[in-house]
Amino acid sequence: MTYTGRKLEQVAQPVPNDIEISQSVTPLKITDLATKVGVQDNEVLPYGDTKAKIKLDVLDRLKDQTNGKYIVVTGISPTPLGEGKSTTTVGISQALGAHLNKQVFTCLRQPSMGPTFGIKGGAHGGGYSMVVPMDDFNLHMTGDIHAITAANNLMAAAIDTRMFHESTQKDGPLFQRLTPDNKFSKCMLQRLKKLSIDPSKAPNELTDEEKTAFARLDIDPSTIAWNRVSDVCDRYLREITIGQSKTEQGRTRTTSFDISVASEVMAILALCDNLQDMRARMGRITVAYDNKQRAVTAEDLGVAGAMTVLMRDAIMPTLMQTIEGTPVLVHAGPFANIAHGNSSIIADRIALKLAGANGYVLTEAGFGADMGMVKFFDIKCRTSGLKPDCVVLVASVRAIKFHAGEDLKKASSSEQIKQGSSNMIRHIENAGKFGVNVVVCLNKFKGDTDEEIAQVIQIARDAGAFDAVVSDHWAQGGKGAVDVSESIVKACEANEKQFTQLYDLQTSSISDKVNKICKDIFGASSVEFSQTALQQIERFESQGLDKLPICISKTQYSFSHDANLKGAPSGFVIPVREIRCYSGAGFLVPMLGEISTMPGLPTKPAYYDIDIDEDGKILGLF
Amino acid sequence: MTYTGRKLEQVAQPVPNDIEISQSVTPLKITDLATKVGVQDNEVLPYGDTKAKIKLDVLDRLKDQTNGKYIVVTGISPTPLGEGKSTTTVGISQALGAHLNKQVFTCLRQPSMGPTFGIKGGAHGGGYSMVVPMDDFNLHMTGDIHAITAANNLMAAAIDTRMFHESTQKDGPLFQRLTPDNKFSKCMLQRLKKLSIDPSKAPNELTDEEKTAFARLDIDPSTIAWNRVSDVCDRYLREITIGQSKTEQGRTRTTSFDISVASEVMAILALCDNLQDMRARMGRITVAYDNKQRAVTAEDLGVAGAMTVLMRDAIMPTLMQTIEGTPVLVHAGPFANIAHGNSSIIADRIALKLAGANGYVLTEAGFGADMGMVKFFDIKCRTSGLKPDCVVLVASVRAIKFHAGEDLKKASSSEQIKQGSSNMIRHIENAGKFGVNVVVCLNKFKGDTDEEIAQVIQIARDAGAFDAVVSDHWAQGGKGAVDVSESIVKACEANEKQFTQLYDLQTSSISDKVNKICKDIFGASSVEFSQTALQQIERFESQGLDKLPICISKTQYSFSHDANLKGAPSGFVIPVREIRCYSGAGFLVPMLGEISTMPGLPTKPAYYDIDIDEDGKILGLF
Repeated sequence: MTYTGRKLEQVAQPVPNDIEISQSVTPLKITDLATKVGVQDNEVLPYGDTKAKIKLDVLDRLKDQTNGKYIVVTGISPTPLGEGKSTTTVGISQALGAHLNKQVFTCLRQPSMGPTFGIKGGAHGGGYSMVVPMDDFNLHMTGDIHAITAANNLMAAAIDTRMFHESTQKDGPLFQRLTPDNKFSKCMLQRLKKLSIDPSKAPNELTDEEKTAFARLDIDPSTIAWNRVSDVCDRYLREITIGQSKTEQGRTRTTSFDISVASEVMAILALCDNLQDMRARMGRITVAYDNKQRAVTAEDLGVAGAMTVLMRDAIMPTLMQTIEGTPVLVHAGPFANIAHGNSSIIADRIALKLAGANGYVLTEAGFGADMGMVKFFDIKCRTSGLKPDCVVLVASVRAIKFHAGEDLKKASSSEQIKQGSSNMIRHIENAGKFGVNVVVCLNKFKGDTDEEIAQVIQIARDAGAFDAVVSDHWAQGGKGAVDVSESIVKACEANEKQFTQLYDLQTSSISDKVNKICKDIFGASSVEFSQTALQQIERFESQGLDKLPICISKTQYSFSHDANLKGAPSGFVIPVREIRCYSGAGFLVPMLGEISTMPGLPTKPAYYDIDIDEDGKILGLF
Repeated sequence: MTYTGRKLEQVAQPVPNDIEISQSVTPLKITDLATKVGVQDNEVLPYGDTKAKIKLDVLDRLKDQTNGKYIVVTGISPTPLGEGKSTTTVGISQALGAHLNKQVFTCLRQPSMGPTFGIKGGAHGGGYSMVVPMDDFNLHMTGDIHAITAANNLMAAAIDTRMFHESTQKDGPLFQRLTPDNKFSKCMLQRLKKLSIDPSKAPNELTDEEKTAFARLDIDPSTIAWNRVSDVCDRYLREITIGQSKTEQGRTRTTSFDISVASEVMAILALCDNLQDMRARMGRITVAYDNKQRAVTAEDLGVAGAMTVLMRDAIMPTLMQTIEGTPVLVHAGPFANIAHGNSSIIADRIALKLAGANGYVLTEAGFGADMGMVKFFDIKCRTSGLKPDCVVLVASVRAIKFHAGEDLKKASSSEQIKQGSSNMIRHIENAGKFGVNVVVCLNKFKGDTDEEIAQVIQIARDAGAFDAVVSDHWAQGGKGAVDVSESIVKACEANEKQFTQLYDLQTSSISDKVNKICKDIFGASSVEFSQTALQQIERFESQGLDKLPICISKTQYSFSHDANLKGAPSGFVIPVREIRCYSGAGFLVPMLGEISTMPGLPTKPAYYDIDIDEDGKILGLF
């Protein structure tokens, strides 16, 4: 039994604004949708009428089910004009479901609320291709980001409080207070093991040296890598000094808040298999180093279990729907620069099982294909073991022209497209290196001429795309994306290539991996590691952390580390300033530049126009 | 049709720990419970199987329904031993419902998660008198506190960002950026009105002086009264310096984080009538004063609408249930010292309507009766217009003995009770001053002797209590509270006294009101206002804010401002250091001492023992 949504009966011209479109439809009751797409009653937890959590039990029940086709949606290097990647993801879903009668699932990232109230623009799609109700999508959802904030900040408080108690107490009382009633907490057994202390001993059986080793984490404050987070664009928290109350007795420290989606907890949510795996990853998070340069983990702090308990509900994806009634799973939304920028493995797995052998799953990767898609392949697919069947590369005429650069601003449209498509071409070629078919979806914008469209399509096909098709889903809904969706179906069926990773996790060194990405994907001539980065590589190698995949942190606006290099630059030297270790999420992050992890607010933020009317209806949200 | 829950079939001896008891019962599916207690399908939004939001529509539908009996549960001055107020509130509910066949509702505050992970102990009750599932009650609930955090912190970011933009931009560009497209946002019309600028003018029609007046809030940073909040016990955030990143160009500021439940947004949630009233209150929040000592409000910042939108779901109370299946409404949980410490008016109103003429509603007031009960009468009932039918005053033998003080520690039990009950007596007398019957519920603890119990009961009756009854609900569930519940029913029926307020809102001055509370309730001989407080009084009078009720902020451990004065002290002089204005919530807060609004964590916080087991079941939560 296949449920494929319901076609929009008509669309208005000109296209109304998003909130009007969203409020013009009555979504299916979410529990009814869950039933229609094959979720059993005992596997669904409704959160109101329009959102529901899906229990991971569904994976056990369907473990022998064949997966659907797995399609990743990515884009050319982003421009300030917007290419409409989310809109395209949703539009193609609507076409595959409501118009081509396929069982289809869309897997999206949960948006941060910070930008929603800062600079207009949500991640719900747009026009007649969106997730509804869009206000439910953009506000709180089912609380997952709040849970991440709580878990992240509990650990932050744990770090500072532990340092405070260690610095104000002598060894004896400190050990005594950590082990009241002469008992170790369950999580403390891990620390005993790490310190090679017999865990079957009672606390009072430890030697004085063992007691001291156990009780003193001896965190070196300068190495603390854990920031507090807030889901608000709050620039004044980018750098702060804490501990200035007299109760902290002068123990101040400089630190930062990041926006919540930049938390490693978010990346863990996106990459974990289940609650047990999440628990293990939480324990592995590197919090800081001690005065002897040994890693101090969340497990050492005794907080990993509580963090997992705080994430107990967040581990379940949220079911919503598109405007044409096809199912959407929203789950996790890690930063696409500092982290890997992809929605959760759990949601994709559930979607693939529910879609089944004849079904389709679209999942969106953040930023351009050099970032989101590469991380999808190298980090997400490697972690999950899932193999993609097709890449959809979103482009637009105006974005391609933008990549021609300032110098060509007065050149002919044809010349601009010719030059600017170098960016698209390299993304197509890059996808090819992973052995996956690429369909270019040219997202139509008002004013694009037939000639321009034809030119881009020809260039894309010549560059090795399986196909390139124009799409008008913003104005027409799924109907506008039927052609491109038919090509996607063919690309999945024709998927005879061998999916391959860019580097081998076990045999490549950290610097080999980084070099491979920078040269093969970005077009760099070479990579220069700073002294700091080289020391970090050495440390990670000695800790056995060199087998982790690489998650490059750089600007999304260029293949290179320099946002101004448009098109497809080459011959540049990439500097690696430092390498951060996300040992919980399971990747290493070479930093190619300064990345802001806390956005600010403009002079007139979006919140000025967000309000309720007399009936309690929301105004001004997009 | 009356739904009265279901009796516990048996209770175990000795009483198991809370999480075992909670996990031993299968709660009614929450949508079924909603139906049973008279909520219609379209008025309920389930959040999973054990929690549901109740829409405010129920109030419209039942507006002509007679209210149930309204019972406030309070206690003697708290001691470190715990008196079991939440447990008693739940136990009496279970007795009234499952054992005495009354339609009963329990209205509770949502607990902060901070202490849950810090020092053991939740607000779910305990033993066989608790809200189930207790983990759902203590973790996230339906996200209301997270919404408060988001709304509070959006305003905090708005304040600092606005000051930044004002200080880095000239008048012209600043005004221009605030009114792009030559349009005012809807919320800006309020500011125009406040500045006596014709709101029908287009932005470019304003004079230069008007433009400057409009665009410049000119906040005096030293007057900012709005802190950021976090629902984590994070002592290092008690005093911090923000804005130290180079992007803020040296514009640093010292500020604080409070625990989320201390936010004025929480107090507003607890006191508002509906979304429109919440919107108006948000707009009235005093953020700071400008350089000319004029109040700057959330409306001036343009953020009140967005804050309300963030609270759109939080305004609905959450339905849960007791272990004996009676309905519980959980909603709001303002600090009981810095704020008024009572759950929401909206929840009480819904409960009173659903309970109906023959039903009962128990609502809990924070801390001792001098704080929570007095604020219930003077602030909450005044705001809602609801009249209480009975006060339940919770006491325990051991707490009464504790109030006898250190000096009598070696005296006979009878002597200790005689001396310590002075505290209980004054609370009974105080309740009498409001014209409401008092039933003392003596919460039984292991080791209390029959003689001790008889002595306390006699003293309470002699002091003017309508009745005093021992109760054993912790060990026996509702069955243990049947006797006291029967007295409560009688007290409600015999409620012929006239409910009266302590002072008149319109005719009493601020200092009269403060004097009245300090002398009549606390037993002070006089009140000394500091210079600061006197200046503040003057300012509030000139702003017309002197008609607000008073919300005293002081220690909960004594009638006085000194936590060490046990029993019923008198003759002391109360110092008022400053008076804070919560113009959104609608009360003035005289500060009688330093109140910590950000708890810390002990050396071994509760989180060490909180974890999941192999099946994902929660361990160590209490």
